[in-house]
Amino acid sequence: MKADNKRMLVGRERKPADTVVRVNGIAIGEGTFTVMAGPCAVESLEQTLETARRVKKAGAHLLRGGAFKPRTSPYSFQGLGSKGLEILTRAKKETGLAIVTEVMSAEDVPMVALVADILQIGARNMQNFNLLDACGRQSKPVLLKRGLMSTIEELLLSAEYILSRGNPHVILCERGVRTFEKYTRNTLDLSIVPVVKKLSHLPIIVDPSHAAGIRDYVPALSRASVAVGADGLLVEVHPRPERAKCDGSQSLTPDGFDRLMKTLRPIARAVGKKLR
Amino acid sequence: MKADNKRMLVGRERKPADTVVRVNGIAIGEGTFTVMAGPCAVESLEQTLETARRVKKAGAHLLRGGAFKPRTSPYSFQGLGSKGLEILTRAKKETGLAIVTEVMSAEDVPMVALVADILQIGARNMQNFNLLDACGRQSKPVLLKRGLMSTIEELLLSAEYILSRGNPHVILCERGVRTFEKYTRNTLDLSIVPVVKKLSHLPIIVDPSHAAGIRDYVPALSRASVAVGADGLLVEVHPRPERAKCDGSQSLTPDGFDRLMKTLRPIARAVGKKLR
Amino acid sequence: MKADNKRMLVGRERKPADTVVRVNGIAIGEGTFTVMAGPCAVESLEQTLETARRVKKAGAHLLRGGAFKPRTSPYSFQGLGSKGLEILTRAKKETGLAIVTEVMSAEDVPMVALVADILQIGARNMQNFNLLDACGRQSKPVLLKRGLMSTIEELLLSAEYILSRGNPHVILCERGVRTFEKYTRNTLDLSIVPVVKKLSHLPIIVDPSHAAGIRDYVPALSRASVAVGADGLLVEVHPRPERAKCDGSQSLTPDGFDRLMKTLRPIARAVGKKLR
Amino acid sequence: MKADNKRMLVGRERKPADTVVRVNGIAIGEGTFTVMAGPCAVESLEQTLETARRVKKAGAHLLRGGAFKPRTSPYSFQGLGSKGLEILTRAKKETGLAIVTEVMSAEDVPMVALVADILQIGARNMQNFNLLDACGRQSKPVLLKRGLMSTIEELLLSAEYILSRGNPHVILCERGVRTFEKYTRNTLDLSIVPVVKKLSHLPIIVDPSHAAGIRDYVPALSRASVAVGADGLLVEVHPRPERAKCDGSQSLTPDGFDRLMKTLRPIARAVGKKLR
Repeated sequence: MKADNKRMLVGRERKPADTVVRVNGIAIGEGTFTVMAGPCAVESLEQTLETARRVKKAGAHLLRGGAFKPRTSPYSFQGLGSKGLEILTRAKKETGLAIVTEVMSAEDVPMVALVADILQIGARNMQNFNLLDACGRQSKPVLLKRGLMSTIEELLLSAEYILSRGNPHVILCERGVRTFEKYTRNTLDLSIVPVVKKLSHLPIIVDPSHAAGIRDYVPALSRASVAVGADGLLVEVHPRPERAKCDGSQSLTPDGFDRLMKTLRPIARAVGKKLR
Repeated sequence: MKADNKRMLVGRERKPADTVVRVNGIAIGEGTFTVMAGPCAVESLEQTLETARRVKKAGAHLLRGGAFKPRTSPYSFQGLGSKGLEILTRAKKETGLAIVTEVMSAEDVPMVALVADILQIGARNMQNFNLLDACGRQSKPVLLKRGLMSTIEELLLSAEYILSRGNPHVILCERGVRTFEKYTRNTLDLSIVPVVKKLSHLPIIVDPSHAAGIRDYVPALSRASVAVGADGLLVEVHPRPERAKCDGSQSLTPDGFDRLMKTLRPIARAVGKKLR
Repeated sequence: MKADNKRMLVGRERKPADTVVRVNGIAIGEGTFTVMAGPCAVESLEQTLETARRVKKAGAHLLRGGAFKPRTSPYSFQGLGSKGLEILTRAKKETGLAIVTEVMSAEDVPMVALVADILQIGARNMQNFNLLDACGRQSKPVLLKRGLMSTIEELLLSAEYILSRGNPHVILCERGVRTFEKYTRNTLDLSIVPVVKKLSHLPIIVDPSHAAGIRDYVPALSRASVAVGADGLLVEVHPRPERAKCDGSQSLTPDGFDRLMKTLRPIARAVGKKLR
Repeated sequence: MKADNKRMLVGRERKPADTVVRVNGIAIGEGTFTVMAGPCAVESLEQTLETARRVKKAGAHLLRGGAFKPRTSPYSFQGLGSKGLEILTRAKKETGLAIVTEVMSAEDVPMVALVADILQIGARNMQNFNLLDACGRQSKPVLLKRGLMSTIEELLLSAEYILSRGNPHVILCERGVRTFEKYTRNTLDLSIVPVVKKLSHLPIIVDPSHAAGIRDYVPALSRASVAVGADGLLVEVHPRPERAKCDGSQSLTPDGFDRLMKTLRPIARAVGKKLR
């Protein structure tokens, strides 16, 4: 079955009205622009709390942060695991921010779902069909990142796995695709936003941090994401990027994030999106 | 020599101030957002005049239109040639709009430069070094489109050919790169805008029509182009796209272009760009 | 850590001698050319037995066939699961051919390892780190397929996950990467063979069936695989490709496989490889 | 018109019999394997003569060497121009080897055609339609290289330009396409050989030097090119690669070329191709 098939659960033809994913008083996809910010990896209680307080103050709606980290090399930092989940729980209690965090395998879904308000499926797991299945058989919303090498059709078919198992609360996420260009880590494909809006009722957000790989390009790409019609942003913020255990070069500082948020609001107004 | 070498003429380090390309009272790159609109190919006097009047009224600053068309197949419409140039001259006389039109080979440069206010070098000719050389040895501004397969570094090195031959009036243009994605004709790489702004002083505009290949996606990508910091837009408009001899599926109608221009202005204001 | 780091377990510098993977009396990587053939998916006992007998007779060394099938769409045939494993067991008992079959998730490893002589990790799971980990903590050899858009470095780092967990018996497999070309399903990257031979001691085989996606191109690509220095071939054979539940268009018939094997032997001799 | 259209001059349907390009007593495409070898650029009489003698002795059929060099940077060595053509003429007189050399623009065609036995159109000029036109309107055979990011369809349509202008003597050449992989300069797409053999009657050869970008990988890829069914090879040889003005890292030494030729012959025999 093709992704533009009329019988697809993810398709506009089957369900014309936009899907709105509600979590912790936030409505993702309902004419709002939702910002999820935080560190690539949860490294310590202090780092996480400091980031959470700062991004909340600047206007972020959710805290992102990885406890389980999929890493290309077996020798890279793999995340704090369940201890990372405890830290996220503390950060939520303190700040009231809902939590989005990655789950890497089907067997971890119940544990991560206890803590996360939104379960993130990473780009490298977009076609981990057992994981899609497990996320489809529970009720927490799922943030599904597009694979580095995946077509829009494949992304929608992976979302279809989740919906067909019973969970309609899926948010898509563009994070850049792999091309020959070398000045950026990946090539952010913002065309996906109008394409998905036409084909599907699911909300879609953009992660400019992983796409750019370089902090300096994140603000311009974030502004473009608002203007192109995305429903939100997933952005990396770290209090001391130079010491980050993961992806420091693409993380904004809290001050940089403050400045970014101020420039997003007038664009959101210009395109008719609410961003408090 | 690498594109980020300090001795490069196109580089920020050698010339920190933004280059402003002045043509017909328009200043491209000086905190303005310049819109170049018109048909893919000049097909007739009527089609060209009708389009020119409509895009002028909607706020376009230049008229685009091809007299010489590079086509993948030898059996496709190859443009009206010198007759097309005459039509463009008429359209300029009537509307006052400056003309941007493509030149395909070194020997045609003098003829096209008689009519064009800006000489366009197409994506497939970005590394036609004899053509770059010829455009560098005359004084009309040059719009240099990124090749479908070209890195940002290669684009800047092709611009360097022109500057090193004596012509500093170069405008870069992103028009999408080739990837595995099939829902759009090419993948618009908006990351190029902040990257070029960092590396170079040259203005850069965006062609969302060729990138998308589908009319419906052009408005969203145009809005993203303003927000990401581009200096302008190159957009296809045809009075009857369904009868266009070239690229009809990606051309806006004049009414669609009217609506687009209205949505661009508030975004331009939000990012501090002038767009009358 | 980079894939060419001297401390890498997969690296030539750390272990200069070629790794030879021994299974069922076959030595993969020891100057031999090993052919693994069979259907994409195990569909029935009859189909599997018929294929097994035919490929054995033609000279294949192992039987390939999927019981668990990773499929892009949730509505495609997902394989017979544990019943498929029983059929493979029967086919092995009858023909004596060792079995290579895919495992899709960490929790299935023990069950699949009971039947398989070689555990296959599919292209879409090349960076499913939990699965790599589980395959590294058991003793059956692992056939690790390169992801559709994975670099050689990433493939070697995924192999490093398995070796670093204690299992040195890894065979790499090239199966085509994703490019802009549309006449073939993927682009077979045979350059990987000399590159891997230089960087690593691990054996590497080629899957021309998934790369080509079209039966007609499989024989020429198989011959090139022998000549380029690969250690073997993974090739799809189905008795009635037009009725196959999966990938029929790229499957050879048993007669086609007979003819292919005959053309491989003189090339194997020409490059000094044993192929009985 | 699509490249698989029945009315295409390049198509098998219109002309079922293989095209054989005859030059200087050599028949390219007639069950033979033709080797064109020499330096990337003609640098001096000594370098060119030395290379010509050595590659002739080793069995090469034509001498390749660039007098006009298309270079990404305006500051790189651009070739000796007409002086380079004189050197090639001398080398031909001394060794009897036919000459294949690049022509970069339509206006240079008559001058280059005086010296060259085969006119080469480089990858970056594959869609320089004025150049295709000019090469189609003269009678010397044309070696048309596939663009770095051109589809097989586009390559065939560029060949169609030449045939439709009256010149049927076209040889296609695969030289690697641009992908995300970084261990090789480009990714050699050997699948093009069986695809072209099915769609077209034109001969096709392979340039493994530009694809690999690294000398060490050239022999294995050359052997694969014979086995996959190509009609010949275009390979870079330089007497002192470490001092080459262009592409030294991918050039074989004359000794390396000797060794390569010896390994090609048994494979040619194995696939039924003549290689003296």
